[in-house]
Amino acid sequence: MAGNSFGTLFKLSTFGESHGPAMGGTIDGCPAGLKIDLAFIQQELDRRKPGQSNITTQRKESDTVEFLSGIFEGVTTGTPIGFIIKNEDQKPKDYAHLKDAYRPSHADFTYEEKFGIRDHNGGGRSSARETACRIVAGAIAKLILKQKNISINAFVKQVGEIKLEKTFDQLDLSKTENSIVRCPDETTSEKMIAYIEDIKKQGDTIGGIIQCVIQNTPIGLGEPVFNKLHAVLGHAMLSINAVKGFEIGSGFESIHFKGSQLNDVFLPFDSTSTASTTSTGSVADKKIITKTNNSGGIQGGISNGMPIYFNVAFKPVATILQKQNSVNNKGEEIILEGKGRHDPCVLPRAVPIVESMAALVLVDFLLLARCNRA
Amino acid sequence: MAGNSFGTLFKLSTFGESHGPAMGGTIDGCPAGLKIDLAFIQQELDRRKPGQSNITTQRKESDTVEFLSGIFEGVTTGTPIGFIIKNEDQKPKDYAHLKDAYRPSHADFTYEEKFGIRDHNGGGRSSARETACRIVAGAIAKLILKQKNISINAFVKQVGEIKLEKTFDQLDLSKTENSIVRCPDETTSEKMIAYIEDIKKQGDTIGGIIQCVIQNTPIGLGEPVFNKLHAVLGHAMLSINAVKGFEIGSGFESIHFKGSQLNDVFLPFDSTSTASTTSTGSVADKKIITKTNNSGGIQGGISNGMPIYFNVAFKPVATILQKQNSVNNKGEEIILEGKGRHDPCVLPRAVPIVESMAALVLVDFLLLARCNRA
Amino acid sequence: MAGNSFGTLFKLSTFGESHGPAMGGTIDGCPAGLKIDLAFIQQELDRRKPGQSNITTQRKESDTVEFLSGIFEGVTTGTPIGFIIKNEDQKPKDYAHLKDAYRPSHADFTYEEKFGIRDHNGGGRSSARETACRIVAGAIAKLILKQKNISINAFVKQVGEIKLEKTFDQLDLSKTENSIVRCPDETTSEKMIAYIEDIKKQGDTIGGIIQCVIQNTPIGLGEPVFNKLHAVLGHAMLSINAVKGFEIGSGFESIHFKGSQLNDVFLPFDSTSTASTTSTGSVADKKIITKTNNSGGIQGGISNGMPIYFNVAFKPVATILQKQNSVNNKGEEIILEGKGRHDPCVLPRAVPIVESMAALVLVDFLLLARCNRA
Amino acid sequence: MAGNSFGTLFKLSTFGESHGPAMGGTIDGCPAGLKIDLAFIQQELDRRKPGQSNITTQRKESDTVEFLSGIFEGVTTGTPIGFIIKNEDQKPKDYAHLKDAYRPSHADFTYEEKFGIRDHNGGGRSSARETACRIVAGAIAKLILKQKNISINAFVKQVGEIKLEKTFDQLDLSKTENSIVRCPDETTSEKMIAYIEDIKKQGDTIGGIIQCVIQNTPIGLGEPVFNKLHAVLGHAMLSINAVKGFEIGSGFESIHFKGSQLNDVFLPFDSTSTASTTSTGSVADKKIITKTNNSGGIQGGISNGMPIYFNVAFKPVATILQKQNSVNNKGEEIILEGKGRHDPCVLPRAVPIVESMAALVLVDFLLLARCNRA
Repeated sequence: MAGNSFGTLFKLSTFGESHGPAMGGTIDGCPAGLKIDLAFIQQELDRRKPGQSNITTQRKESDTVEFLSGIFEGVTTGTPIGFIIKNEDQKPKDYAHLKDAYRPSHADFTYEEKFGIRDHNGGGRSSARETACRIVAGAIAKLILKQKNISINAFVKQVGEIKLEKTFDQLDLSKTENSIVRCPDETTSEKMIAYIEDIKKQGDTIGGIIQCVIQNTPIGLGEPVFNKLHAVLGHAMLSINAVKGFEIGSGFESIHFKGSQLNDVFLPFDSTSTASTTSTGSVADKKIITKTNNSGGIQGGISNGMPIYFNVAFKPVATILQKQNSVNNKGEEIILEGKGRHDPCVLPRAVPIVESMAALVLVDFLLLARCNRA
Repeated sequence: MAGNSFGTLFKLSTFGESHGPAMGGTIDGCPAGLKIDLAFIQQELDRRKPGQSNITTQRKESDTVEFLSGIFEGVTTGTPIGFIIKNEDQKPKDYAHLKDAYRPSHADFTYEEKFGIRDHNGGGRSSARETACRIVAGAIAKLILKQKNISINAFVKQVGEIKLEKTFDQLDLSKTENSIVRCPDETTSEKMIAYIEDIKKQGDTIGGIIQCVIQNTPIGLGEPVFNKLHAVLGHAMLSINAVKGFEIGSGFESIHFKGSQLNDVFLPFDSTSTASTTSTGSVADKKIITKTNNSGGIQGGISNGMPIYFNVAFKPVATILQKQNSVNNKGEEIILEGKGRHDPCVLPRAVPIVESMAALVLVDFLLLARCNRA
Repeated sequence: MAGNSFGTLFKLSTFGESHGPAMGGTIDGCPAGLKIDLAFIQQELDRRKPGQSNITTQRKESDTVEFLSGIFEGVTTGTPIGFIIKNEDQKPKDYAHLKDAYRPSHADFTYEEKFGIRDHNGGGRSSARETACRIVAGAIAKLILKQKNISINAFVKQVGEIKLEKTFDQLDLSKTENSIVRCPDETTSEKMIAYIEDIKKQGDTIGGIIQCVIQNTPIGLGEPVFNKLHAVLGHAMLSINAVKGFEIGSGFESIHFKGSQLNDVFLPFDSTSTASTTSTGSVADKKIITKTNNSGGIQGGISNGMPIYFNVAFKPVATILQKQNSVNNKGEEIILEGKGRHDPCVLPRAVPIVESMAALVLVDFLLLARCNRA
Repeated sequence: MAGNSFGTLFKLSTFGESHGPAMGGTIDGCPAGLKIDLAFIQQELDRRKPGQSNITTQRKESDTVEFLSGIFEGVTTGTPIGFIIKNEDQKPKDYAHLKDAYRPSHADFTYEEKFGIRDHNGGGRSSARETACRIVAGAIAKLILKQKNISINAFVKQVGEIKLEKTFDQLDLSKTENSIVRCPDETTSEKMIAYIEDIKKQGDTIGGIIQCVIQNTPIGLGEPVFNKLHAVLGHAMLSINAVKGFEIGSGFESIHFKGSQLNDVFLPFDSTSTASTTSTGSVADKKIITKTNNSGGIQGGISNGMPIYFNVAFKPVATILQKQNSVNNKGEEIILEGKGRHDPCVLPRAVPIVESMAALVLVDFLLLARCNRA
């Protein structure tokens, strides 16, 4: 229960420091008989890996996953899937000057106070490099979701003040990967890129919002009371480095509307009508839809078959290439100079992480839902 | 794992439908030797109970808790604390007309699709009445936190467009209970009450934001990676009925600042300076504080000793006293007429629920933190 | 994780001291749509309750279960099933003299050392009265198993030196309930009863062995490595008061045979042959059986479709009606005089407890097995 | 929850098939600040590894563990300890003839029925090779126990009919490692070795009993009701390959005694008396001991400070070097010929596995016990 595993039936446990020999993990509970598409998994890792464009860190890591167990002749066997990703581009020297320093808004101080010891190389366990393991498990989860025709698409909705003003059903989400900032709207994408390049020149960083859309979710996922679907999605998202907020459906905007305005009126599902096809999934036996979807596809904590969508707020990365005042582990004031190769904006690389965590949650609830009824 | 328990070491399991004979629960893992202040627990329940003011539902429930085990001569024994709260003011007739109906933005449809059956009386398990059990456990958790001098204070920060424009350290949080809307600022409180009364007259409902502040938290609570302190707090809050969003520290506002602006610079702790006493806790051995607290008291998922604060967004209650279009379980269009006794705004009663869930999270991590070091 | 819950998907949490107002529990994860046969549940409780014959304690408890939630119009709803059993025949005076005493081979000393406090009335939480709650959950689990045609039959195989020398397939297990000692063989039953009556006259107690047989188990229950089916069955049985040993299939006897003698040879299943029908279940699609069943129906931790059988060893009850030397909580030597109404032999009442725990394990693995394959 | 992890706070998750590239695992929850003695860990692995003597399999595996995370400059950091053990001596050809065959009393049939697929090379996940990972975690657990002066010693008590007739306190347990069969009594050891050599010549296999003794355990380990210390020890032992039975303290022998004979009378602890020093630990503040120790150091599921001892029964290894009748996955009768390099008796190599699983249980309960009191 020390916090390095996630999920109940489809369970990921991870290990690894950013500058140790390898990161890795185990997926326990992956159903047997799933065909593993290795190329797809590596492609997902490539979406997260450093050095993929000029607006991400220039650190070089191939992020190649090696599977050690649980897959036999390309198919899962029901036994745990163990994997490692070797760390290649380790430059501990980059971090030697940080041995005793507490970097502002990093985990240096809290880890050292909690554990009495800390691996100071590149953040150790607190480094976002850990999320590579989430991508591996998320990619396998996506393979399961694909079988059910469930799709998960995240994209960058806002960077600093540059905001994509369209709703997800006004967008062609298949275009997200065309953009290095992972915004599916070309004009906004260009503005975001220019903005991030400017921030990078300043040696500074910027945050933003990622929106994630899950379509064709079966009705009935999520558990009453404490494990509501959006509560576990929120948990998953807030566990990602630099995330500061989560909102489901109408989210914080809900406060500006009255119940009579915000309630999602039910409608009989008429497959011929325009209204019903706009924003609904293709669940075959669907009889009922909602006119609006302020609920974000979840009511009473349980999916209602409408698209699930949520926003995740990321703060600017804490590591900046500017001088900062700080304190060392003796309580002395110091001046830190930002070095190394860092992301001016973490959002483009965070898109697949958001999707991966969503996929883990969905698969876990899909399996749990097999036990709903006697 | 069906979702009706919360916590790892200090674990609450609850049961009960709003219109069954009783709600109840079990707290497993409460340390032995804790003095139980029954009056305090009942007082906490009274803060949540219906009928406490004219801006809450006029349903009458005394919400009296009966403890069945785990307490011997007023002191916890280390064995599970079982308790029940009998349902008194049941008017199933109020719900008979809803037997086959799916109320908009309620859990009627999703429960029935998930389980193939649903207790339609007053929402059954999906009713917010379930949160009374959280208050009982939360009150016991607060008794543990009091021993450590840790305080938790939630208050209503915004109702519809009426917003409290002060930060928590500009407020006297001890005044929250003076206000029936639970806003510690008298002027804003009055505006909120007037606004809710108006909404009530319309037969409508309104949402808002509750802010929660945790002070004197020891450094080192929270677990790396998946169980970051704010991720579990987010999970806890999003599991409360009607919650749509959660943000820690600077939250969604973080996107408007650059890293150089948002980073919380560390300072040596000088107990004599004004700056350091304004917003810090009184952790005795504190050597280091942060100049600003955009992190919301949590860095790398672990508490840093600064005040923890977060916002929780509530949508307007789904039950309104107006006619609404809907659909029944045969897929036929129907018109629903709002009846019964409901809250025009759930926030005043949700304040102790937010505090209770925060207390459960804090106590669980306090216990887990006993195992940080060899 | 404080030890008062059992199971992963079908999860029982219990609370209650033997002399508090009530025992109770919650079953979380019971699938929806199960018809609840209240008479059957009460009948199972009656098999465990005190005072049922002259070889059990004369304590009077009706052990009437009250369900508080999770059942609607006689059918489970998928929400937690909360229940209580009120304690009726409390005679705290019987225990006043034990306030400071540590009874030999009881939990008095260990509870007080662990928790620094103990409810000394009748053993409090450590009393076997706690097992009544296991019967309630076990009875519901049995209702699920019945739907699958899976049967669980336990019986008393040995009391002191009186041993039933037949194997389970030489017995008519439907006769178990005809015997107050719950031994299905009439001659042996009579000997056991006479023996227990003699022990009772001496103010002494005696232990023995219960055998449990599970038939018609589907192939594939149990999980690799740590949660092997027999490992969890062993855990379940060893958690019952007074149990000292557990063995699956050939158990401790296995050490007297060579691999060539003990291995269970596979045979194609021929439904017409006598050999195959003797000891196999009726799993419809069974193609393969084993010639012998030393494996006890479990291979590699997973059920193979053959009958599962195991033995559970019970020590004599610690409470005797004789004088015993002991020590009090000041470390002083004392003489204890056995008082009250106690069982000379716990086995007859333990038969339904063994079955209940087996049923909990089986149902949990049945649900888990729904997730074996993609 | 698919069964490949063990423990609550000190949690081991393992992965790996016997003939895949590597086995491995993660230990989550190891407290920070523990010095890791790599030589000791490797030495523990060497006690289990194949080829260590002429009465074990001649398979050659160095069983070298590689740690990938969680240890910094020789000390644990509180983050998960990931490790792998590469498989070296893979001879898949040895298993090609078993592709479609179900070996008697192996897991071939049950795995294939459960998962619809199986890695047939050497048993895959069901191979006892998996236990190497338990040794790694067990060795780290032992390092924690050493700090508390808690010792765990297992030894071979019986092989077939060759039985060590002394109780553990009549033995010098430090001599266990002098014997290749791991029996601390020289005469019995020689008999056992000769016996196993004879069995080996027959191409057959034999089982036996391992006894494990835990000394200097603090009072208060174990949790009420479902997680009694001996219940979890039993679970741990029964999860080891080839184990068929478990008994704590007087175990199955308990049935031959009356309560008045078996009860462990309490005595004030007199550090000067012979009686009290014979069989008690050295818990500093011990005030009370028991005259006898039929309880096996555990009362009411909680350690009482006396030595904990239990027996574990192992069946003969299923793989024999003789012809056996069996069935293939088409339901056809076949004749299997034993090939490869196998253990005639698994007990000598199982001694460190029993100790390791006991160590995992003890450490987990030691950590849990930190939360007993407020």
